[in-house]
Amino acid sequence: MYAEGRNAVREAISSDATVDKVIIENGLRDAASRELTALIKESGVKFSFADKAVLDKMSSSKKHQGFIAVLSEFVYSELEDIVAACVATERPIVVLDGIEDPHNLGSIIRACECGGVSGIVIGKHRQAPVSDTVLRIAEGSASHVKIARVTNINTAIKEIKDNNVFVFSLELGGENIYKTNLTGKIAIVIGGEDTGVNALTKKLSDGVITIPMLGKINSLNASVAAGIAVFEALRQRL
Amino acid sequence: MYAEGRNAVREAISSDATVDKVIIENGLRDAASRELTALIKESGVKFSFADKAVLDKMSSSKKHQGFIAVLSEFVYSELEDIVAACVATERPIVVLDGIEDPHNLGSIIRACECGGVSGIVIGKHRQAPVSDTVLRIAEGSASHVKIARVTNINTAIKEIKDNNVFVFSLELGGENIYKTNLTGKIAIVIGGEDTGVNALTKKLSDGVITIPMLGKINSLNASVAAGIAVFEALRQRL
Repeated sequence: MYAEGRNAVREAISSDATVDKVIIENGLRDAASRELTALIKESGVKFSFADKAVLDKMSSSKKHQGFIAVLSEFVYSELEDIVAACVATERPIVVLDGIEDPHNLGSIIRACECGGVSGIVIGKHRQAPVSDTVLRIAEGSASHVKIARVTNINTAIKEIKDNNVFVFSLELGGENIYKTNLTGKIAIVIGGEDTGVNALTKKLSDGVITIPMLGKINSLNASVAAGIAVFEALRQRL
Repeated sequence: MYAEGRNAVREAISSDATVDKVIIENGLRDAASRELTALIKESGVKFSFADKAVLDKMSSSKKHQGFIAVLSEFVYSELEDIVAACVATERPIVVLDGIEDPHNLGSIIRACECGGVSGIVIGKHRQAPVSDTVLRIAEGSASHVKIARVTNINTAIKEIKDNNVFVFSLELGGENIYKTNLTGKIAIVIGGEDTGVNALTKKLSDGVITIPMLGKINSLNASVAAGIAVFEALRQRL
């Protein structure tokens, strides 16, 4: 799905639309194009330059003005459906708090699908959306697991807690995950690659769980940590 | 560490040296350069083109002939040291059978370091070496875990078995990993992203273990699967 033309592209990068990347025509010199190019660079969205012929070929409207945004077509689920599934099946909810690497998000979606979670909740800020890259890494699993995209992770956690789901943050300094009861209605919050779980989010949680480690560096990749936690919850259910 | 000049670069990509990538000068037209460029492309090693000035600046010999191979300086351990550590400490050995993605290898090294393994054994064929990319992804953990690079994985497995280490292959259709005793002197063989554990390697193993799954796709990323297996072995030891 494409957004074509300066206004549509500006709208796409400023709104909640899932922009995979923006293609910018080579050699644009006018003020409006330069201003939008600067805005695109500033937004942090992926972009690349291509010759006019490439954009002409992509364009259906033929009025791209040198800008085409490639939008994701992934259809998100509603948070309440995921919470309802957790309440009904007692399978865990996984909440992602700032996973910025699409490879990690794709691997986490795969692990969650394999582990049979009720669903995944992701935020809109400091968080990779379900882009084409993520879908490719997830290898088809994203079609089989509910993913909700929420404006505010902490509001979502409150809603999860209001349904008597017990919320754990996976972080350093908590209870040994292998000695914690992870059965029943639970959610596991997994923090970003560098930042971990946000302090307020951690405070909102009912408990903090930690994967015990024996090494010197002791820093797991976020998707590996998520996989270990989801499968520990599964192991306890089997 | 660089290999400079046509012969040195040809030698590097044909031998066991760990080539991170080859830089090829732009615009080389002579037959010898074209032949080597074709060989580089065919070898599967990473390469990029750059202007002569870039190669001149990299070169210490100033005789690069338009070709510089960037070699990894990672120092591998010996298989026998890893086996000895396993026999002494009863911490698991992880054997990788065809992990071709450097990101996965880096994540696996991190997981193994955190999980306190005796060491990692990798092959030379269909297997990413410990390149700069891998070291970057491993975030320093590669300095704290022994990694041996062997010519033949099956020969290595025989040597491991000769030391009374019990070898498991992690594959579909085996015993439930959560119901298998993973304590004591064990090795876990993890297969490649697409290929899984080689049939002969699997046959050589003393047992096959499987991570039970609840999804429809049920395909874990190799590094997530490795992390789950290593941490299940750790959990059983705690």
